[in-house]
Parts: sequence; structure tokens; C-alpha cells
Amino acid sequence: MNAPTNTAVGVVGAGPAGLAVANLLNRAGIDCVVLERHSRAHLEQRARAGMLEHRAVRMLERHGLADRLLASAARHDTCEFRVEGRRFQVSYADLYGGRTHYVYPQQEVVKDLIGAFLDGGGDIRFEADDVALHDLTTDRPSLTWRDRESGRERRIACDFVAGCDGFHGVCRPSIPDGAVLEFVHQHGINWLSILAEAPPSTDCVIYALHQDGFAGHMLRSPTVSRYYLQVPVGEDVANWPDERVWAELHKRLAVADGDWRLTEGKIVDKRVLDMRSHVTEPMRYGGLFLVGDAAHIVTPVGAKGMNLALHDAEVLVDAFTAYYRDGDDTGLDGYSAACLRRVWRAQEFSQWMTFMLHSPGAGQGDSQTFLGRLAQARLDHLMTSPAYAASFAENYVGVE
Amino acid sequence: MNAPTNTAVGVVGAGPAGLAVANLLNRAGIDCVVLERHSRAHLEQRARAGMLEHRAVRMLERHGLADRLLASAARHDTCEFRVEGRRFQVSYADLYGGRTHYVYPQQEVVKDLIGAFLDGGGDIRFEADDVALHDLTTDRPSLTWRDRESGRERRIACDFVAGCDGFHGVCRPSIPDGAVLEFVHQHGINWLSILAEAPPSTDCVIYALHQDGFAGHMLRSPTVSRYYLQVPVGEDVANWPDERVWAELHKRLAVADGDWRLTEGKIVDKRVLDMRSHVTEPMRYGGLFLVGDAAHIVTPVGAKGMNLALHDAEVLVDAFTAYYRDGDDTGLDGYSAACLRRVWRAQEFSQWMTFMLHSPGAGQGDSQTFLGRLAQARLDHLMTSPAYAASFAENYVGVE
Repeated sequence: MNAPTNTAVGVVGAGPAGLAVANLLNRAGIDCVVLERHSRAHLEQRARAGMLEHRAVRMLERHGLADRLLASAARHDTCEFRVEGRRFQVSYADLYGGRTHYVYPQQEVVKDLIGAFLDGGGDIRFEADDVALHDLTTDRPSLTWRDRESGRERRIACDFVAGCDGFHGVCRPSIPDGAVLEFVHQHGINWLSILAEAPPSTDCVIYALHQDGFAGHMLRSPTVSRYYLQVPVGEDVANWPDERVWAELHKRLAVADGDWRLTEGKIVDKRVLDMRSHVTEPMRYGGLFLVGDAAHIVTPVGAKGMNLALHDAEVLVDAFTAYYRDGDDTGLDGYSAACLRRVWRAQEFSQWMTFMLHSPGAGQGDSQTFLGRLAQARLDHLMTSPAYAASFAENYVGVE
Repeated sequence: MNAPTNTAVGVVGAGPAGLAVANLLNRAGIDCVVLERHSRAHLEQRARAGMLEHRAVRMLERHGLADRLLASAARHDTCEFRVEGRRFQVSYADLYGGRTHYVYPQQEVVKDLIGAFLDGGGDIRFEADDVALHDLTTDRPSLTWRDRESGRERRIACDFVAGCDGFHGVCRPSIPDGAVLEFVHQHGINWLSILAEAPPSTDCVIYALHQDGFAGHMLRSPTVSRYYLQVPVGEDVANWPDERVWAELHKRLAVADGDWRLTEGKIVDKRVLDMRSHVTEPMRYGGLFLVGDAAHIVTPVGAKGMNLALHDAEVLVDAFTAYYRDGDDTGLDGYSAACLRRVWRAQEFSQWMTFMLHSPGAGQGDSQTFLGRLAQARLDHLMTSPAYAASFAENYVGVE
């Protein structure tokens, strides 16, 4: 396939952000080309996030992109906290108008969006190496890349670039130093993230506080589960052989009454996550619009990342639609502010929840600090105040 | 007056905590003697806190101690936030079952409680110097002091001691090192606290966020107001002549539409407060029960200090009543835990509010930090989410 030499929107990256932008552009009749470094096969099996908010699913549904999701995703309306063996559930859907989460692995979202885009005649260039952005502050930016298979250099000119290539992609670094503000925060917390071929041992997400640190049990599918263990900052994954992982999960997730069991399985991925946050302001530089992780990273606590990406995508395509249909660029001018309101809300909520779940000092044998007691007080209040729980529910399942 | 040589409860300190304990003991028919370092005149004019929560007023009312308060205190149901000149009000009473604050200066509470106690035959020793606590872990603790007027040394034996002499009093330091846990936290924020003979320029409390730092306008009476200004840590009050105080208050409290004016008055007190928190766990050592500020200090943000003291007092006297009437000491054993739940809730709420109102970097010319943006997001959410506002209301006016 020869690349066209022109398009309206050049989309860099075919994760949930880029694919949502591409599909929505396609449905709006706006021309686009997607460049992606990885192969289709790689993208369609890469396990990442797995919790879609009510709002994100409704958006996909409006655009006809949620058929398989709605047919197969489990709906979640409750989460469980465990504190030193005691269990407590929050029925957040009941507290926020029946809105639920949909448990649907990110690679399934990607699979659906690639399929829909290609079925609709969309143009994705997989295995595009050395993508570079040019002339972003002119009215004719362009993208260059090298096709991995043929080795050919390619160039496409476009009106706009949608930078959807994640935190480590090339789009954000294409913005000159000092042209945007970068907000960074290290939370001082590391998680060991574990993916296992094990059926879930729970029908709702579990957040467990233990004197040795946080543990989480997330759901992905009937045969695959994700777990998290708080580990010391700078921890080497080599210190966590599978037996130690399971022993620690058994211990931290244990319940006092003993009638709950963790089912083990084959561990297929194990990595250390450094809890960090990052926000770029504004999310635009000239003709480049940053979308999703390319613009902002939120900790996994609260499961906001993919949902923010889908929100950004919708706001951006609405703005492109107004621009191409009516010549109205107010949407493009307001894109960054509209997205950042939701981004900062998610950052604030995630930090609130991170603080609550990671009693300072936990894992270092000293949870008896002032801040540790505040974290306990926060969780105690969540367990006892319907008003506090209602506010948690709104943030957790996603503010409308 | 000769001191008796025996009493049931020796009460150290005649602030709101000690006077509430003494009055409630008196009404329960339990003998007590109150020792107080200051003169009655000093206590009855010492300006401190001024916001009583619904719950505290109902408690005083149940014991017949709220007549003058109910006749004269202004009821507050709303607070106002100002952000760089924009105004936003939260009608917290509407959001929490009609419960209001009562604006009633602490010295008026003290005046009422001294009057009621003495009218009921109570025994307060004012100007008691060099109070010391003895034999706290025996079944017969005692208190010694020197009467300032006569210079005579006094001693009284008691069953229990109620330590109500505040953060700088002698009771907490009477506990041996290591016998209780002490939780301390410096918030890294200083306030200049100003009391002025000026009528309030507002009918509700104002919390103002300005790029140069927080400013607050609190109400005390029709002729007296309190103001706060965030100042650099370690600030010397000498750097704040009255003209500078008023200029800074005018600037930080200003509204964009210009139809609001700050009325000045004679400044009668000016001091720098270092925002700190302190909690003693448990609030008991042998026969000594710590009450109010002697056990815990909370920042002025949220106005919880006096309310916590009154709650402690009620819990303690309920426990004494069960002990003396029924020989039941479960209340005394549970005193600390019952109080600390409320104390930690107040600490957590105060820290939440402190963070929101003191955008990190404010006053240092750099509010554009990650944490500064989180503080903004918190306030933005309070302005837009009814669920969040409802949860704020519950905490602000005091969880039932």
C-alpha cells in the first residue's frame, strides 16, 4: 500500500487513544492516517488496563463501537476494601445512579477498534519506525516514518497531528523545551504488577491494606487476573520469584473469618511500577494535539488512564468536526482546558485514594505515624459515612 | 476557702474542656474540684475560638448550659470561598439536615460555664500555681498546687484526674516518656492571626485563595472579627504593622466585581500561628484522662478544636457517671478510643481543607506545581459536585 501524501489528521499511535480518535474521525467523514510502531498482533495481545467507566462505554456505544464489549464485559458495581483481615464493600453503582464499571481488557478494546477502523476503510500503518513530527507551528505539519517491511522512507502532510503515542512516545518530546508546562509528581510508592492465568478469586476488585503494605486483586477475564503488591521503592523484580508473589498475596489478602481462598495460576507478566503522575499544559502545541497518556499519566490507583484517553479522543474529534464542518475552531482552542478539568479531577482523586491505601510507613514496619493515622481515618470515614461513600462513588466510577 | 482534702475528680484547667467536665460532673452529682492557673477575669476575656458545631450546642443545651448562647449566638449555615476574586458559597446546613454553626466567642462559653458551675456550688481554685500530678497509676492520685494569693501549698487526693490544661499544660508532660504514643505533624504553613474591633464585613466565613497566599475572615461578634493571613514559615509578627495587615487583607479578600468592602477596625491582637497537629494515644494514663487540647491539637482550619474538647468532656463524664452509679468501668476503658475516632476524623478533614486552601507554592510565587494543581482541582470539585459538597458539609459542620 502506498501512503497518501496528504490527510486531514495524522494520528500517531494505535493504542486506545489513537484508535478512538481514528474511528471517531472516520465516522465523522474526516480523513486520517494512523502510524503505529508495533505490529497489529502485538497490540492485540498487549495486556494493560481493564476497567472502563460507564461514561466511556456510553461514548463507544454511541459510535457503534461497543457491541462486543457490551456482549461480553462483566459489569462491576461494587469494590471491596480489606483492612488487616476485615472486609468492607462499597456498592458504588447504587450510590451513583446505577453507573457501573465494565471489565474489559485493554487489548480487547484495541482489537475492536482496529477491526472497526479497518472495516470502515481506515488506514493504519503498523510497524512504522522512526516516526518524526515536522512543522508543527505551520499550517501544514507533516509526519515522516520508515516502513519496517520495505525499509522505505515515507512522508505525509496533514492539517493536524493527534499525538496518541503514550508517555514514552515521540509526540510530546517534539514540543520544544519551555513551550508547555510539565507537572510531575513521584508518589514514592512502587507496585509489583502481576498478570496471571488464574480465574478471579473475587467478583469485585479488592483493595487490601496490610501492615506489610497494599495488595490489590483486579479482574480482567474469567481466566486472567491482575494483582498488585506494594513493594519498596527501587525494588528489583528479581527479588520476587513466583512463590514469593503468591505467598505475599495470600498473606495480605487474607480475611479473618477464613472462608475466602486465593486461586493461583501461571504468572505471565511481572513488573515494578513506579507511582508517578505527569500532566502537560496545555495539551496542544501548534497543530499537535496530545491525547491520552502522551499528555498525562495517572497512577493505576482508580483505573483512570484509559478512560481519560477515551474522553480526550471524543473531545478532540468533536472539535475537529466543528472545524471541518463549520469552520469553527473554538472547540480546538478549548480542547486542552476541556480535557484538563477531567485530568486534574482524576489526578486529585487518584492521589486521595493512593494516600488512603498506602498508609505511610506501611511496609517499613512503622505505620504508626501521623499520616498513617490520617489514612486510616479516611478509610474509616468511607466505611461509616454515606455522604463520603457517595462522593467516592462519583469519583470512582467517573464523574459524568 | 480551704480546699477539701478529697474529691472524686480533680480537674486541671478551666478552659472549655475543664469547665464542661466540671459542669457535667456537677449535674451528675459527682464531686470535683477545678484548678486553674489564671484569674477568672483573664479567662473571661481571653479571645480564642468562636465556632460551635450543632452537635456541641445540642450537648450544652441538654445540660442546661446553652441559654445565653442560644439567645445571642448568630447561626451560620453558609461559608464562602474566593479564588482570585471569584466568589462561591457552600450552603452547608442545607446539605446536612439543617445543622448550623453557632458563632459564639470562646470567652463567652467560658463565662457561661464558670457562672453555671459556681451557681451550682462548684469549686474552682483560680490562680493555682505550680500544679503537679502525683501517683497517677495508684488508686489514689493527688494534685498539689500553691495558692497565689496566700502562698499556701495545697494537696487534694482524688479518684481520677481530668487533664484539661491544654497543649502547654502540665498534665500531658506528667505522663512518663514512652507510656503513650505521640503523633506530631508540622504542616509547613504559618498564619498571621489578627483580632480586631471591627464589625464583620461578611455574614459568613470567607476562605480566600490568592496567589500571594490564603486569607480568612471569621466572625466573632457584631463588633469583633478575626482574620487570618498565610505568611512565610518563621515569620516575625514585627514584619506586620497594622497598615500592612489591612493592605494585605484588602488585596487577598478582594472580589472581581468590586461591590464588596472590608471594614477596618482597631487591631487588638496579632500573632503568628504555626500550623501543627498533635495527638496523644491513648488519651489516658492510669487515673489521668486527657481532655481537649491537652490530648490533641488540630489546626484552626475547620474550627474543630473547641468542639472536640466539648465532645471529649461529654464522653468522659458519661463514663464517670456509669462508674460511680453502676460500678461500670467499660466507659472509662473505652474513653480514649471513643474520642480518638472523632479526633482523627477532624485531623483528616482539617488536613484535607488545609491542603485545598494553601495551594503549595502560594506566597512563594510558584503555585504552578503538581500539588498546587491538585489543590485547585479539589476546590473546583467542591464548587461543581453536589456529592462532594454534601460530604464537605457533613465534615465541616461536624459529623453527628
